Amino acid sequence: MPSSFHPRIPELMMASGPCSIYPRVLEAMGWQMVHHRTDEFVELMLSVSDDLSKLFKTANRVLPVEGESILGLEMAAANLVEPGDVCINLASGYYGAGYAKVLRGYGGDVVDVTVPYDTSVSISSVRQALDRHPEAKVLAFVHSETPSASENPMEEICRECRRRGVLTIVDSVSGVGGSTVRFDDWGCDVVVTGTQKCLGSTPGMSLVAVSDRAWERAERVTHDTGRYERSYLSFLPWRQWVDHDYVPYTPPISAIYGLKAALDIIDDEGGVDETVRRHERAARAMRAGVRAMGLDLWVDADEHMANSVTAIRLPDDVEDGRLRGLMDERYGLHVSGGLGEEAGRLIRIGHMGYTASAQKVVAALGVLGSAMIDLGHPVDVTEGLAAANAVFA
Amino acid sequence: MPSSFHPRIPELMMASGPCSIYPRVLEAMGWQMVHHRTDEFVELMLSVSDDLSKLFKTANRVLPVEGESILGLEMAAANLVEPGDVCINLASGYYGAGYAKVLRGYGGDVVDVTVPYDTSVSISSVRQALDRHPEAKVLAFVHSETPSASENPMEEICRECRRRGVLTIVDSVSGVGGSTVRFDDWGCDVVVTGTQKCLGSTPGMSLVAVSDRAWERAERVTHDTGRYERSYLSFLPWRQWVDHDYVPYTPPISAIYGLKAALDIIDDEGGVDETVRRHERAARAMRAGVRAMGLDLWVDADEHMANSVTAIRLPDDVEDGRLRGLMDERYGLHVSGGLGEEAGRLIRIGHMGYTASAQKVVAALGVLGSAMIDLGHPVDVTEGLAAANAVFA
Amino acid sequence: MPSSFHPRIPELMMASGPCSIYPRVLEAMGWQMVHHRTDEFVELMLSVSDDLSKLFKTANRVLPVEGESILGLEMAAANLVEPGDVCINLASGYYGAGYAKVLRGYGGDVVDVTVPYDTSVSISSVRQALDRHPEAKVLAFVHSETPSASENPMEEICRECRRRGVLTIVDSVSGVGGSTVRFDDWGCDVVVTGTQKCLGSTPGMSLVAVSDRAWERAERVTHDTGRYERSYLSFLPWRQWVDHDYVPYTPPISAIYGLKAALDIIDDEGGVDETVRRHERAARAMRAGVRAMGLDLWVDADEHMANSVTAIRLPDDVEDGRLRGLMDERYGLHVSGGLGEEAGRLIRIGHMGYTASAQKVVAALGVLGSAMIDLGHPVDVTEGLAAANAVFA
Amino acid sequence: MPSSFHPRIPELMMASGPCSIYPRVLEAMGWQMVHHRTDEFVELMLSVSDDLSKLFKTANRVLPVEGESILGLEMAAANLVEPGDVCINLASGYYGAGYAKVLRGYGGDVVDVTVPYDTSVSISSVRQALDRHPEAKVLAFVHSETPSASENPMEEICRECRRRGVLTIVDSVSGVGGSTVRFDDWGCDVVVTGTQKCLGSTPGMSLVAVSDRAWERAERVTHDTGRYERSYLSFLPWRQWVDHDYVPYTPPISAIYGLKAALDIIDDEGGVDETVRRHERAARAMRAGVRAMGLDLWVDADEHMANSVTAIRLPDDVEDGRLRGLMDERYGLHVSGGLGEEAGRLIRIGHMGYTASAQKVVAALGVLGSAMIDLGHPVDVTEGLAAANAVFA
Repeated sequence: MPSSFHPRIPELMMASGPCSIYPRVLEAMGWQMVHHRTDEFVELMLSVSDDLSKLFKTANRVLPVEGESILGLEMAAANLVEPGDVCINLASGYYGAGYAKVLRGYGGDVVDVTVPYDTSVSISSVRQALDRHPEAKVLAFVHSETPSASENPMEEICRECRRRGVLTIVDSVSGVGGSTVRFDDWGCDVVVTGTQKCLGSTPGMSLVAVSDRAWERAERVTHDTGRYERSYLSFLPWRQWVDHDYVPYTPPISAIYGLKAALDIIDDEGGVDETVRRHERAARAMRAGVRAMGLDLWVDADEHMANSVTAIRLPDDVEDGRLRGLMDERYGLHVSGGLGEEAGRLIRIGHMGYTASAQKVVAALGVLGSAMIDLGHPVDVTEGLAAANAVFA
Repeated sequence: MPSSFHPRIPELMMASGPCSIYPRVLEAMGWQMVHHRTDEFVELMLSVSDDLSKLFKTANRVLPVEGESILGLEMAAANLVEPGDVCINLASGYYGAGYAKVLRGYGGDVVDVTVPYDTSVSISSVRQALDRHPEAKVLAFVHSETPSASENPMEEICRECRRRGVLTIVDSVSGVGGSTVRFDDWGCDVVVTGTQKCLGSTPGMSLVAVSDRAWERAERVTHDTGRYERSYLSFLPWRQWVDHDYVPYTPPISAIYGLKAALDIIDDEGGVDETVRRHERAARAMRAGVRAMGLDLWVDADEHMANSVTAIRLPDDVEDGRLRGLMDERYGLHVSGGLGEEAGRLIRIGHMGYTASAQKVVAALGVLGSAMIDLGHPVDVTEGLAAANAVFA
Repeated sequence: MPSSFHPRIPELMMASGPCSIYPRVLEAMGWQMVHHRTDEFVELMLSVSDDLSKLFKTANRVLPVEGESILGLEMAAANLVEPGDVCINLASGYYGAGYAKVLRGYGGDVVDVTVPYDTSVSISSVRQALDRHPEAKVLAFVHSETPSASENPMEEICRECRRRGVLTIVDSVSGVGGSTVRFDDWGCDVVVTGTQKCLGSTPGMSLVAVSDRAWERAERVTHDTGRYERSYLSFLPWRQWVDHDYVPYTPPISAIYGLKAALDIIDDEGGVDETVRRHERAARAMRAGVRAMGLDLWVDADEHMANSVTAIRLPDDVEDGRLRGLMDERYGLHVSGGLGEEAGRLIRIGHMGYTASAQKVVAALGVLGSAMIDLGHPVDVTEGLAAANAVFA
Repeated sequence: MPSSFHPRIPELMMASGPCSIYPRVLEAMGWQMVHHRTDEFVELMLSVSDDLSKLFKTANRVLPVEGESILGLEMAAANLVEPGDVCINLASGYYGAGYAKVLRGYGGDVVDVTVPYDTSVSISSVRQALDRHPEAKVLAFVHSETPSASENPMEEICRECRRRGVLTIVDSVSGVGGSTVRFDDWGCDVVVTGTQKCLGSTPGMSLVAVSDRAWERAERVTHDTGRYERSYLSFLPWRQWVDHDYVPYTPPISAIYGLKAALDIIDDEGGVDETVRRHERAARAMRAGVRAMGLDLWVDADEHMANSVTAIRLPDDVEDGRLRGLMDERYGLHVSGGLGEEAGRLIRIGHMGYTASAQKVVAALGVLGSAMIDLGHPVDVTEGLAAANAVFA
């Protein structure tokens, strides 16, 4: 009898992203093709566009770019940075630190502001850096650092930079939809998010919000540097989209369907502010639960913690591989470990998009507690759940 | 823009059945039609048939009847019972008690053996009834009583009846796939199950295993009573299926797809014995967890409890509607209450098919514990999970 | 690597039913379970119910019965016929002729009105039969005879019977949704349809419209005959649904989802009258195309032909198996042959639900013409399409 | 009642790409997430990788890049071209001509070899260009030019270039899977295809085969030009994939599922040679049918025509918009018009992936003929189908 490949799919995935995604998104991914040069599809794209502007809270049109989030982030550097430009880079985690290479890749003269990876950058250290480098053209940072589950004060940083005329590049891949972002109000310049984190859709797209200042700069930088203006990395081909509703490439039709379903879910929920509140609640509940259970969080203070993922310090007597293996194989819950130096020192549980729910938090706390108990490390799940519950009540 | 109806679907359903079902089954439900009079479809039906024979452990072909499980159960009475036949009916719960009406509907002279609905029928009381009614033609009982989460000793009852030449009608709607059934070895006569319980598919089919003795009796009864032999309720049209691979009606093609996927999952798991073991573990863990948490089970003894569902006695200070409402609305877990006199006195959590997993049990215990704590009823979730864990270790 | 069973699915199926069904219905079939005793599901059922009443044009609630269409038809006999009742049965095809057995199965004293299977029953012959049998209680007929692709004059027959107080049982399995049905206006008593024909959903349900007179008779017959009133075949348990919105059995949740999607498609199209017009156009185009191609239709006159399926007389030089085999294997189009004596004498092409479209008709004519040419039988496809086109223009 | 956005989807799409895609691919697109850093996913990627190597007939690992096909093509230029490099660009259509800008964007000194857009480049003109430019480093061309439905002699061009040490960049976006490609045998250097054409999956990925020579050159060019070596446009990050099975970015998980299903379909068919044969047959049949119907093909000679799409010259009395509008609205078939100067002069019908079937060709010929007749332009569909049939016989 005929058969076909089918992957083994985990019962529940609460990793650092992607996590298990919304069933309605999966359903939309299965719709048959409509042609991208038809009125139907243009209508769909315009509707997605309106939804995205609401998501980022911007009057500008957001670019729905086909490719991994790092593509959108590289686009930001490729369009805003000229060789020799001083770029301040806030290195508060692996992703932030890594972005220095991207900036340098485009000739940026990078000044790193580094903090330990278990905290976030203070606005005062940002001001100091800006004071010391008044010539800086660009400041880049990560809003929500998934590798360490920390979050930087996006509003303060963006407002400060705008005040000083410094352009901001914000990696909000795991931020938008889970933490508040007010693109226009805060004077952001380029903010990039992905579809696979707080939006709860599938990985494959980079959503890029661009301010008028950033557009102007992109045109100037492209001209001055002679960069290839029709490049896939250039903002410029997207003017056709912004000005004439014409998507410059064959769009990833299924991914657009999935994105639309994800944006509909936000709309059904009452808008992005409600979705953010749900993520906040899930995050607060997870943290309260973990602590009350008797475990330690990785990040040094609540106000530095991300809404989309929680990092838990591994107790000395618990080995990372055994813990996560047990959670996965015995309890069907896939979570993430640490990256780089943090490997083996923490585990990370994602509560983003579909998994930012009371039930998933309770399930994750239950599984985490169960596996800890299995491994002989005593935790108090009762206290954990009681503390988490208090958030949802 | 166009839109279409879409139901609000609970995050997780662990009711008395149906529960949330396997994603692979849902996928199969979405396959386009093949015609039922093609070689492809006949090949599919024969494969389903082989799988079903393995499921019931019978050499006979099982009837894949289109309609709710009660249809299969009524067929049993319609084919085996003649007016005036003495039928012993074991009333150990709502479903068992209710079956007396079906038997009487076909003229059966019913002798009820009743036990309280929080226990199961003992083999000795079955023997007594059989001793007292040596003229009995049929004995009917429910294998797994979902309304009260109890289970009757199917093997002993069927063996005893076979020894005495009494035909057995077994409602194993929530038994097959979750508890051991050996149709041929135990000498069962008619065993009915559904697709929506331990098989983890969608409701809509009645699967009916029929012994040679039952076939003979069906032919005789149909002849003697003049019952309509082409009736949808008659076994006789299914001889075409048994003897000539010809399904007598247009089959429910999508439901057959879903059933095949569900049977494939059992096969992937290593066969039905493994699937039963998974259900047993889930049930033992749930019971251990509930008790260790400080709550009481409804059924009087472990050996009387079902593998597919657990009934928990509501503490006096916890109101049914508030508890289940909270579990549902706050924690996205839908469970069932009690039926009839048990309404308000217990809740029932289904662990069947897709939900018979360690993760779902941990999630359910976590949600139950959370909601209890929310309602001010103290429970010890830590102990609950530790006890449940011990089963999965 | 893991794999799973997957059926070989024909590219296009235009059989006598089921045919290829609407993608939106398939999508709905894949939705996860909601529990049938929740407000959400009741709301869904009530919405389905409203849609069904519009479909049949009746103020009464239609019964959404779980099981093949023959179940609904048998229910009609079981509820309306008492032993000895004179039942006039119009035998204008295999299904009509076969229903005599069902009526007799419930004690009916059947008077057959037989016509050749390539025409339909005239209202005058119906009147004659009614004149000759003024004692008749019931008259049964098939609205749309899929085996021979003929259609009986339902309106006239039902009106005549109502005038004379004779109850009508109408098999409109392949009629409702494709041909006009006005249940209340025409004074019908029991009309049965299926989900797998003109509704374009999956097989598995019987939709049964019941008049007040039929309800009354059902209650009387059940009482007088002592038939089992809780039987799956009885209308009576459905009073809970009609009176109290309570579905008496666990409903086939996925099939209800599919049915709702199918009903939504009708609604999107502008209501059932538009859907019927689409079926009429497809039927007229198919017939015009077949004739203009140089082939003969089976049924003797246009006004006797069905809207949902067309029967084409096989030319002497074309062998049925070779033709349909070629259409299927070479051109990916599955159609049906004849039944019984008509086997080998005709082929039948279904244009129902999803396949009642101009494109599918053109594709079918193209494939039919192609295969005829391949087999050396000359046809004029150009004329065929031109004639079909004229209908769609 | 709740509802959700749903696009209006055409019954059948046979455009220049994407076309309607395989149902099995759509199904795979709906699978829930597995994490990309798990053994399961790596196993899946390795299997996709093996399949892709078979598809391109190369021993090297093909790069599964996330983004539109133009991304893969730009990567080729970005990795192989240094400023001042002489690049011969074969401009045999809109896509070929357009690629000159990409080469120039990376500093290429482009020599265009232009031919009218209704024919293909001859190997002799390629040899002449190579003779005239012995310093050429790179030769770029389009294998299958979808805008004009022409095909260049890939084997001869690649063999000639390899003989002379010139690197080839081949846009085979609508070629691979539909026309023969033997990457290693023919000595190709970079060949790019997409998932949305002959593979019959959804748009969104660029599949890039890279020879050892191209890898070497990429490393040298990156080093010499100082291009950003971690760029999304660079081949270099993909060494981790080639050497260590490590995908350098979060992969587009759903698109990988869809791709795997598409590759499974090729495997089920007996391998890519069989799939190519199916495309060839569909193309030959379409062309034979169009001509025999009395219409003209756009491309000047059969040996210059593509396997994946057919361009049909519009007769003077038929207006493009009315024809395609009619085909779409009346007959539910979406096809493409011409681009640029060819707009209004031709229509293009795609027979690629799912639509490269006898049935779809017959349906398209039927619809095309029908619409022509509707518009008063006489065509002979009978002859058309007879001629097409002869190919499938």
